[in-house]
Amino acid sequence: MNEAKKCAIFYVSDGTAITAETVGRSLITQFTGIDFIEKRLAFINDPETAQGAADIIQNTPSDYQPLVVNTVVDIKLRKIIHSAGGLKLDPFNRLLRRIEKTLGIKSDPGVGRTHGMSDSGSYNDRIEATNYALSHDDGVNLNLHKADIILLGVSRSGKTPTCLYLALHYGLKAANYPITDEDLDRMRLPNDVMMHKDKLYGLTIDPFRLSQIRSERRPNSRYAELRKCQKEVSDAEVIYQGKQIQFLNTTHTSIEEISGKIMIALDLNKRLY
Amino acid sequence: MNEAKKCAIFYVSDGTAITAETVGRSLITQFTGIDFIEKRLAFINDPETAQGAADIIQNTPSDYQPLVVNTVVDIKLRKIIHSAGGLKLDPFNRLLRRIEKTLGIKSDPGVGRTHGMSDSGSYNDRIEATNYALSHDDGVNLNLHKADIILLGVSRSGKTPTCLYLALHYGLKAANYPITDEDLDRMRLPNDVMMHKDKLYGLTIDPFRLSQIRSERRPNSRYAELRKCQKEVSDAEVIYQGKQIQFLNTTHTSIEEISGKIMIALDLNKRLY
Repeated sequence: MNEAKKCAIFYVSDGTAITAETVGRSLITQFTGIDFIEKRLAFINDPETAQGAADIIQNTPSDYQPLVVNTVVDIKLRKIIHSAGGLKLDPFNRLLRRIEKTLGIKSDPGVGRTHGMSDSGSYNDRIEATNYALSHDDGVNLNLHKADIILLGVSRSGKTPTCLYLALHYGLKAANYPITDEDLDRMRLPNDVMMHKDKLYGLTIDPFRLSQIRSERRPNSRYAELRKCQKEVSDAEVIYQGKQIQFLNTTHTSIEEISGKIMIALDLNKRLY
Repeated sequence: MNEAKKCAIFYVSDGTAITAETVGRSLITQFTGIDFIEKRLAFINDPETAQGAADIIQNTPSDYQPLVVNTVVDIKLRKIIHSAGGLKLDPFNRLLRRIEKTLGIKSDPGVGRTHGMSDSGSYNDRIEATNYALSHDDGVNLNLHKADIILLGVSRSGKTPTCLYLALHYGLKAANYPITDEDLDRMRLPNDVMMHKDKLYGLTIDPFRLSQIRSERRPNSRYAELRKCQKEVSDAEVIYQGKQIQFLNTTHTSIEEISGKIMIALDLNKRLY
């Protein structure tokens, strides 16, 4: 019998290893039929922790091929890690040399830590935006004038996690407005929501999936009935279309993708010229 | 006068461009004294969007050097983007070839999209964990038996954003318990918290910063007084130390770093052998 190949992939970093993990995971998604195990080795920033990481890599079970994505900046520590063997994958070194050559400037490894997403918004903006999202969840306590974005959708269509992600990652103030039975009866949204039309974005979801999600929370309720879910979703989509509100189906879409698409649709990609 | 060099860095991807952005940002943090502007060009997945991206790159102001971090998989689309010029930075191609060689297996670009963090926990785990974090925020409605982690800290020490980050990114069920005045008077935590000692992790914060944060929320309150903040923080740290609860100062630490350190401390890095 032809056994699947096995790989152990290590994400080694002097910081959180989020960048190394992001890169490594992108690489391994390109290979099928391989049994991957992953291990994050974060905050490797002195000879002791580096030796600890090397020991872990060296103890990879012998039927696993070790791959080492290494974003540690300090050369001495890198050497300790590399002494453990395995395929060395450095996502940055060659690219840094190319940028240096093009710009005619040396990089300064003492300065930059590979902080990944942590600078997407300043820390304070992100905390403030998270507090905003929490206090403007489910349409309560609405102060929509301050919102960067207002997500619309029926209950359990994915509004809350998306708002929190936009806040935590990008420091965007995201409020959400749950479309109510009353709105659906009237087939319109309240004026104090519609007055912010340029900030509105709708979410929709497959009614079968919605019914399943609602059933987990309230089994055998009218709220979770498939027919009710179908009617709500269909009516919400009619409202979006009638008012030319852009919307997206969240059923098979990751939180990252939903957030990315909303930012493009509402032109919230701030850091540009 | 010696003007700063100027660069425009583009993150181009057929997905959310989170991976391209993570890599690109790690690269540019290594250069000081350069005026960087950034632009994310996400969901570039057909000739039209690729041409649109190429046009944007081509229109870079002439005093800016364009750098193009390109993670688009489709070769035809890559060519369209590269026709725009700029320094081409591909974080994956060479690393993929090296993995292929080591494993003796071809990569399958049709299979893997560069999803970045989106697979860190399954979508459902993450949504469920986010709901858990929201319903177990600020010590209300405690069902700590189900928690993967319980964060302790005085009010405004960073518990809520950290819990939400752990949930949204890693699908970890993170509850938080705010240390109350009553706990501080008694210098102990309630038994129903202490019985989960192996899940406890404390946050602390610089009292000056805490006073500042609280002042923004409730100006001139006793709650925000520096002396009260100093006393609360110092007492909370004594409680942590007395019970050998690991803790971390959040004052100068990003949400990602806090989360990463907690996961290591509580051994919550699940994906391992």
